[in-house]
Amino acid sequence: MADLFPPALNELIRSLQALPGVGPKSAQRAAFHLLERDREGMRRLADSLLVAASGMQHCKQCRMFAADELCTLCADPGRSERELVVVESPADVAAIESATSFQGRYFVLMGRLSPLDGIGPEQLGGPILEARLEGEVQEVIVATGATVEGEATAHWIGEMARHHGVRASRIAHGVPVGGDLEYVDGNTLARAFAGRRGVDEI
Amino acid sequence: MADLFPPALNELIRSLQALPGVGPKSAQRAAFHLLERDREGMRRLADSLLVAASGMQHCKQCRMFAADELCTLCADPGRSERELVVVESPADVAAIESATSFQGRYFVLMGRLSPLDGIGPEQLGGPILEARLEGEVQEVIVATGATVEGEATAHWIGEMARHHGVRASRIAHGVPVGGDLEYVDGNTLARAFAGRRGVDEI
Repeated sequence: MADLFPPALNELIRSLQALPGVGPKSAQRAAFHLLERDREGMRRLADSLLVAASGMQHCKQCRMFAADELCTLCADPGRSERELVVVESPADVAAIESATSFQGRYFVLMGRLSPLDGIGPEQLGGPILEARLEGEVQEVIVATGATVEGEATAHWIGEMARHHGVRASRIAHGVPVGGDLEYVDGNTLARAFAGRRGVDEI
Repeated sequence: MADLFPPALNELIRSLQALPGVGPKSAQRAAFHLLERDREGMRRLADSLLVAASGMQHCKQCRMFAADELCTLCADPGRSERELVVVESPADVAAIESATSFQGRYFVLMGRLSPLDGIGPEQLGGPILEARLEGEVQEVIVATGATVEGEATAHWIGEMARHHGVRASRIAHGVPVGGDLEYVDGNTLARAFAGRRGVDEI
C-alpha cells in the first residue's frame, strides 16, 4: 500500500488517525472523500486546526476552553459565586446551560479520575478547584457522569468540599423523564428507589 | 452554545464536519479530544491536509490519486497493457494488489454511477476510459461493487467495451471463501448457483 499511494496521501491517512475513533480504514475513507469532493473543506479544516491549536487556552478559573484568560461565563459578572457546578467536559456545561436556569459558576475537570490512564487530581485541576473552594462558594454541585470513574471523581470532590467546610451535592440519578420502567436497567431502578422523595417534596 | 465556546472552537467544530460521517456531536467530541490531548496531532493534521489539498492530482491514465502526472502503477513499465481492471476507489486497487498477482493496469472510477447524486459517465472519467479502450487493452475486468449502483456501472462499462470490440469480464460473485452456506444471503446464493463451474474447470 505504501507504494501505491503518493507519500502525501499516506501522511494524510496517518495524521487523520489522531481523531478519536478513527482507525486506518476510516482514515483512508475520509482522505479519499475529502480529496475527491471537498478540497475547500480540507483548507478550512487545516486553518481552524492551526488557529485552535495555538490560540486556545484554559480559563484560569474554570478550565473551560477560552480565547482569553477567562471564558465567557467566568467573565460574566452577573452570575452567582455561591454555587459551583463541577462537570467532566465543556459539552456538559453546554448541556446544563441549555436545559436549566442555573445562574452560578462552573468548574470543568476536562476528564475524570482514571489512574490507569495516568489521570489523577493533578490532571483534573484539583489545586485550582481547591483554591476556588476557599472563596465564596457555598455549595458544590457535582455533575460528573454516572459511571464508575464519574462516581469516584464525585467522591473525591465530595471529600475535598467537606475538608473546606463547603456543602456538596450530587445531581439526582433515576428513571429518565419519558422513560418506561420496564426498559430501565436494574442499577438505575435501584438508584431511583433509593433516591425516592416524598410526593410533597417535589 | 455559540456564546459558551470561543469562536475558534466553534469554527473548529464546524469544519470537522467536512469529514464523512461526522456530525455536530462527534465533531465536538473530536475537537475537545484534540485540544485537550493532542495539539501536536492537530498541527500535523493541518499540515498534511494543506499539502494533500494542493499537491494531489489524478493520474492522467487511471485517475488514481498521484503526486505527478502518472501514479506509481501507471509509471511502472513492467506491467501489461493488455488487461485493464476497472474499480470504484483507490482502496480497491490496494485490495487487489495485496490479494492477487495481477500484473496489468487499473482504471479508478472514483465513484459509481448514481444519477440522483449527479454522478454520471462524465464524473467517472468515461471519456478517459474510452480513450484507453482504443489502445492495446484486450480485456476489461470490471471489479465494481456488487451493489445496485455497482452493477449499473458494470453494465455501462460492458457496453462501452463491446462498442470498442474489447472483451469484458466481471469478477465472480458467490459464497465467500470460508463462509458457511446457511449464513449466506439468498441473493448471493442465487448468484453462486447461476455462476457454477465444472469441477475440472477450477
